[in-house]
Amino acid sequence: MALIVQKFGGTSVGDIERIRNVARRVVETKTAGNRVVVCVSAMSGETNKLVELANQAGGDEPDPREYDTLVSTGEQKTIALLAMAIQQLGHGARSFTGAQMGMLTDTDHTRARILSIDTSSLEAVLAKDEVCVIAGFQGVDDQGNITTLGRGGSDTSAVAVACALGADVCEIYTDVDGVYTTDPRLVPGARKLPRISFEEMLELASLGAKVLQIRSVKFAMRYGLPLHVRSSFGSDVGTWVVPEEDVMERLVVSGVTYNVDEAKIRLKGVADQPGIAARLFTPLGEAGIVVDMILQNFASDGTTDMTFTVPKGDYRKALEIAKKVGSEMAAEQVEGDENIAKVSVVGLGMKDHAGVATKMFNVLAEEGINIQMITTSEIKISVVIAEKYAELAIRGLHAAFVEDGASEPTTE
Amino acid sequence: MALIVQKFGGTSVGDIERIRNVARRVVETKTAGNRVVVCVSAMSGETNKLVELANQAGGDEPDPREYDTLVSTGEQKTIALLAMAIQQLGHGARSFTGAQMGMLTDTDHTRARILSIDTSSLEAVLAKDEVCVIAGFQGVDDQGNITTLGRGGSDTSAVAVACALGADVCEIYTDVDGVYTTDPRLVPGARKLPRISFEEMLELASLGAKVLQIRSVKFAMRYGLPLHVRSSFGSDVGTWVVPEEDVMERLVVSGVTYNVDEAKIRLKGVADQPGIAARLFTPLGEAGIVVDMILQNFASDGTTDMTFTVPKGDYRKALEIAKKVGSEMAAEQVEGDENIAKVSVVGLGMKDHAGVATKMFNVLAEEGINIQMITTSEIKISVVIAEKYAELAIRGLHAAFVEDGASEPTTE
Repeated sequence: MALIVQKFGGTSVGDIERIRNVARRVVETKTAGNRVVVCVSAMSGETNKLVELANQAGGDEPDPREYDTLVSTGEQKTIALLAMAIQQLGHGARSFTGAQMGMLTDTDHTRARILSIDTSSLEAVLAKDEVCVIAGFQGVDDQGNITTLGRGGSDTSAVAVACALGADVCEIYTDVDGVYTTDPRLVPGARKLPRISFEEMLELASLGAKVLQIRSVKFAMRYGLPLHVRSSFGSDVGTWVVPEEDVMERLVVSGVTYNVDEAKIRLKGVADQPGIAARLFTPLGEAGIVVDMILQNFASDGTTDMTFTVPKGDYRKALEIAKKVGSEMAAEQVEGDENIAKVSVVGLGMKDHAGVATKMFNVLAEEGINIQMITTSEIKISVVIAEKYAELAIRGLHAAFVEDGASEPTTE
Repeated sequence: MALIVQKFGGTSVGDIERIRNVARRVVETKTAGNRVVVCVSAMSGETNKLVELANQAGGDEPDPREYDTLVSTGEQKTIALLAMAIQQLGHGARSFTGAQMGMLTDTDHTRARILSIDTSSLEAVLAKDEVCVIAGFQGVDDQGNITTLGRGGSDTSAVAVACALGADVCEIYTDVDGVYTTDPRLVPGARKLPRISFEEMLELASLGAKVLQIRSVKFAMRYGLPLHVRSSFGSDVGTWVVPEEDVMERLVVSGVTYNVDEAKIRLKGVADQPGIAARLFTPLGEAGIVVDMILQNFASDGTTDMTFTVPKGDYRKALEIAKKVGSEMAAEQVEGDENIAKVSVVGLGMKDHAGVATKMFNVLAEEGINIQMITTSEIKISVVIAEKYAELAIRGLHAAFVEDGASEPTTE
């Protein structure tokens, strides 16, 4: 008898009819002989409504503790309704808020980290052959304050509970039917991957693929918990996210992804001296700004250029800091650019396959696309280009690496 | 420095603008030098929406535990929004769900009873000179299940917390500006009472006056906590509900009230024998039906008539039980009537003032209204009449007892 954790997002529980559909699917899984824990988000639209109320009552920066108390009601509604809908189908079900499921977090409201999960209440209900319906996205600190895990927190809740319970699989139901080689809305030739490694999924998620939340993939990877990404609206097999050794076909490139949520800042002509990076990135870090890519060029005149990217939401603040630091360091110029895209190719096979970078640069050159920055890891190459070329780049790279068969499985 | 508990109902927090008004009133009370705990209901309409969702997902009788988990989100929203709104005015505030405020109840979902209140969390926040914003209507059992106190539970929450904290007063803000001698919508001559005793208020609340919930009055009476019923929309003094000894003017009749929420059932011609009442009322009690008035008449032929009233919601079930018992006892006939009204006059002064009943019966006789049942207590007389005469009866009684000066204070 397998233990299966199923996670349904806001669209899948968007109204009562859809909640009934989820209930039917849960009951199907249960009557097939499994124990089931189901984790749900707020009904779609609900969280936005609550955030709007928060801004009306509490201004642009409502108190984080009260914000969490408010928005956590979204999931609390869904768990109760789903538990009722499962009961209507003649099966035992019990809802759990973050506090009730023993989801202990730190007190960092709106982006709390999970500290531990006391699964005893969940296990007691599973032992009675009932379904546990748990609220995603929320937890409780050691003082009983309600916390939320931040964006995408419901995936994280589901995976963390699955790990804590030692589940056999965590099924992530979404409005797409799996993980694709690239965004199918942009590239008609995009195809669904039957299997992908945690490492690849992590790169894809970090690089902008929205199908799974990064933290949830990290959790699953650490515990070796298989994830199954599949559609809420059909019963087809989706994409399995599994340990690297369980991926049979190691594609050279398994995904082409893009991200237009970053902005670029450049300090030009800084006199080269030790500690430039520290002087620049320390105040940025203190301001809570997460820097992604960093590039340092040395000019022949002994000056250096420093270029880095930050989330668009932090762009203004980062530019201000950069200008201040730049003037202290007598930089020639400090400039920013919000119209950039980061385009990446990801694949386990890259490890054993030379020439991927060269081919990528050639494809972009053929399209006349200028590369502004480059970063690489063992299994991915990312480039920053002008945002207006993003779609062109993705289509070209997908055609070259995936559609042309260049991404055939490598023999190991 | 007084400790004041303020309670605002759903209409008073019906939208963000009204929540801001409540915040302003709370801050006024605080800056006047008081410590403040504010207890709120769900925004008006919210609970109805949640109940509708519950019925859609869980049918006519949704699981009570899940129902409580669902509907308690209503107050949780309001407390967070009100805490934010108070903070926006520059004052510290912290919200408390039922669980967070230590409101321990039994597990009787949808109508839980308060077992104890651990006020330490509230007191810690008050000690920091911050406002406590507490959720009405909800609690938590010893297993961490969310419970609700049932209809009117927010009044009960406010008063119970006020008693537990030893507050100086509990102010109940409503959409009327106090307790009236009768329903002002029916009787233009109705007037606001400056003071009323707990005993009178309890009778009025039991008899259908909707301004205060019975359980809350009982709590306040037991602890001698003064209540102040006043309008959310103005700053006038409302009605103080206080111990009998603090009521200066003991009106013969301080209120004329009515209730059309009961139905009458009559068993005719039962052979008189011991234990008729027990045989009838035991199964009714077992079915959870609360019987209000009971009347037994003995006919000269040795048979007896038994008439009683029950809430309209339980009428069908009660009639079924009565018919079954009636046939076992060979009753001549078992009949019911849903079209009745209970009309009552209430007043502390009645104790020392003979002839109130006579006068009441005369007033009704003059209007040609037939009395079907009568019950009395030390400070009230209730009669059951046909529902269609209810307004006529109330106007006549109010004119005779209140408007004609017959209800002048009695000298003690």
